[in-house]
Parts: sequence; structure tokens; C-alpha cells
Amino acid sequence: MTFIKEVDKLKGIYRQTLLMDGSRRENDAEHSWHLAIMALLLSEHAKDKNIDILKVVKMVLVHDIVEIDAGDTYCYDDKAGLDKAEREIKSADRIFNILPQDQAEELMSLWKEFEERSTPESKFAASLDRLQPLFHNHQTEGVSWIEHGIAAEQVIERNKHIGESSEVLWDFAKEIIDDSVDKGYLKK
Amino acid sequence: MTFIKEVDKLKGIYRQTLLMDGSRRENDAEHSWHLAIMALLLSEHAKDKNIDILKVVKMVLVHDIVEIDAGDTYCYDDKAGLDKAEREIKSADRIFNILPQDQAEELMSLWKEFEERSTPESKFAASLDRLQPLFHNHQTEGVSWIEHGIAAEQVIERNKHIGESSEVLWDFAKEIIDDSVDKGYLKK
Repeated sequence: MTFIKEVDKLKGIYRQTLLMDGSRRENDAEHSWHLAIMALLLSEHAKDKNIDILKVVKMVLVHDIVEIDAGDTYCYDDKAGLDKAEREIKSADRIFNILPQDQAEELMSLWKEFEERSTPESKFAASLDRLQPLFHNHQTEGVSWIEHGIAAEQVIERNKHIGESSEVLWDFAKEIIDDSVDKGYLKK
Repeated sequence: MTFIKEVDKLKGIYRQTLLMDGSRRENDAEHSWHLAIMALLLSEHAKDKNIDILKVVKMVLVHDIVEIDAGDTYCYDDKAGLDKAEREIKSADRIFNILPQDQAEELMSLWKEFEERSTPESKFAASLDRLQPLFHNHQTEGVSWIEHGIAAEQVIERNKHIGESSEVLWDFAKEIIDDSVDKGYLKK
């Protein structure tokens, strides 16, 4: 219960992404919920037909818990990205170890697997984590992209690995990136 | 993707429960995320040792989606409770049917099972849905209970079914209810 209390703080970690109605920035807890819903509904589009859905769901539910201490690092902020890994490992060590040892080890291992993107489950989970903010940015007329002066090339470079785990999802992503260029949400 | 866009609205449906730091009310999306985390960590305390964890997680992830149209009904508001079921069925019909038929049927069936509390999974999921706000109320010095003048008896009556799916969780619930009476968060 101490851990369950601790992770309540994730509801106060705000991301760059806006809610789809543009009313405010999204927090990590609701973002993680949205990814879990997407995992349930979109896993039929994963290239690997034997993907373990429960594992994908677990990963997306816990993947941002480290941001309680480490904060949200904007994905196009190269400077903040430099010590991101170090900050997050320290945070994972503190927070997951609030749990009994077996559960601490399971969550640590799920988080590491997610970060490494070395298995079908972690590749698919990471694709959802890319696709969701992309979809939000498109729906909110690229406010967050425009604010940071992001170009289509950067978005493609960062998101192209979606295609490794799902062609269908990468096709959808490319469609909304193209449309975002046409509409001026992204620089060419 | 139309459904995934639609359910973004759940992030704007606010509950009576405060975040544990008392800073603001909690919304349905972050509440559902918190329950999913609890499902992963606490299912070892379910009476039924063969409980299907993925099913419990699915249920808690989707259980409040109907509140997008129906709104959050405060559990001790008897008047609003009168037409709650009717409002929620109408909402479920509209929202789940945005999905392809097979997925619409699965989510509708999960939601109905959750509401009926007739299976080990739905009983356990409903217990988590009771325990979490109770824990929040205790941590936030009963602000929401005091505001509505709630008595310990009402809380026990509403939550006692937790014991049907988990003795450990009901023991924990009773402990914090007793402590809440001692501290004046709940009327005797």
C-alpha cells in the first residue's frame, strides 16, 4: 500500500502533450491508462501474432513511474536527454524497491525491457507510447510541435521504429504526419 | 482510432475523491490507471487463486468509460443513484459501439460483468474500485467524507463486499475505517 500511495504522484507529472480537447496538458497516469486501452484494442495489429498482451499492458502501466523523481523529459530536448537514463535508473531503484522483493524485481525487469525495446512486447509497447502523443498532437492542431518548432523529419526519425512492430500502426502514423505537414502543424 | 479519441474525454470526468496530496479532485482516467496497478500488485490476495489477472485489468481499465456521457455519480447520493443504471446503459451503447463489432461486444460484456459482480474477476475488480477511494479518503483526512457528512456505517455497508473477494483487503479497509472514526474523518 506504501507503493500504491507513492505512485499516486504520477497524476501530478505533466507531459508536453495536450488533451485532445486542448484544455490542458496530459499527466503521466492518464497517458499510461490511454496506452493500456490502446494495447487491448490494437494488439491485433502487432506483427508478432503471439504477443503476450498482459505483458504489454503491464509495461505501459508502469513505464513512466520513474518520472515521479526524474520528471518528464521532452523527447526533442537533446540537452535534457543527456542525463535522462541516469536520473531514471536512480528513480526506478528508489520507487520499485518500496515493493516486496519479488514484485520490485518484476517491475524493474518490465521497465528495463520496455526501455531496451528488445522483445516483441516491448517493441509494441514503445510503439504505442510513440503513437499516442503523435495522435494527440495531430488532434490538437500541432500546438506543442509549433511551440517547439519541430520538423516532420524529426518526428519521422523518432517514430519510424513503430513500423518494426506494426505496419498498420506505422501507416496510420505516416498518414497523420503527412497531414500535419500539409496543415502547417509540422515544419517540412 | 475514433474510439481511442473518444475515450480521451474520460480524463475530464472528475470524481469526488481527492488526489493523495489533496491538490485537486481525481479524474476517471487516472483512477482507472491506479486500479490497474493495484490489480497487478494485489491479485495475490484474491480469495480465488485462479483469478484471470488480464480480465481484472481489462475490467478496471474500461469500467468507468460509461461516465463520459453519464457523469460520475457520487456513491452516497441516493437521488442521483436512481437513474444511474439507465444513464450508463445508454452511454455504454453509444460509446462501445464506436468499435468494430467484436471489440464492442467484448467491452460491453466486460462492463456488464463488472457491474453484476457475479464472477471472481468482477468481484475482485469491484473490490479494488471500492478500496482505492477509501484509501484516498483516509490519506486526505476525510475531506470528501466530512463535506458530505458520511458515517462509518454507510462506508461499511457500501464496502463490506470487499471481504467476499479478499479477506486481506477487507482487513485493511476495516483498519482505515476504524482509524478514520478515531480521527473524526467519519461520523460514528
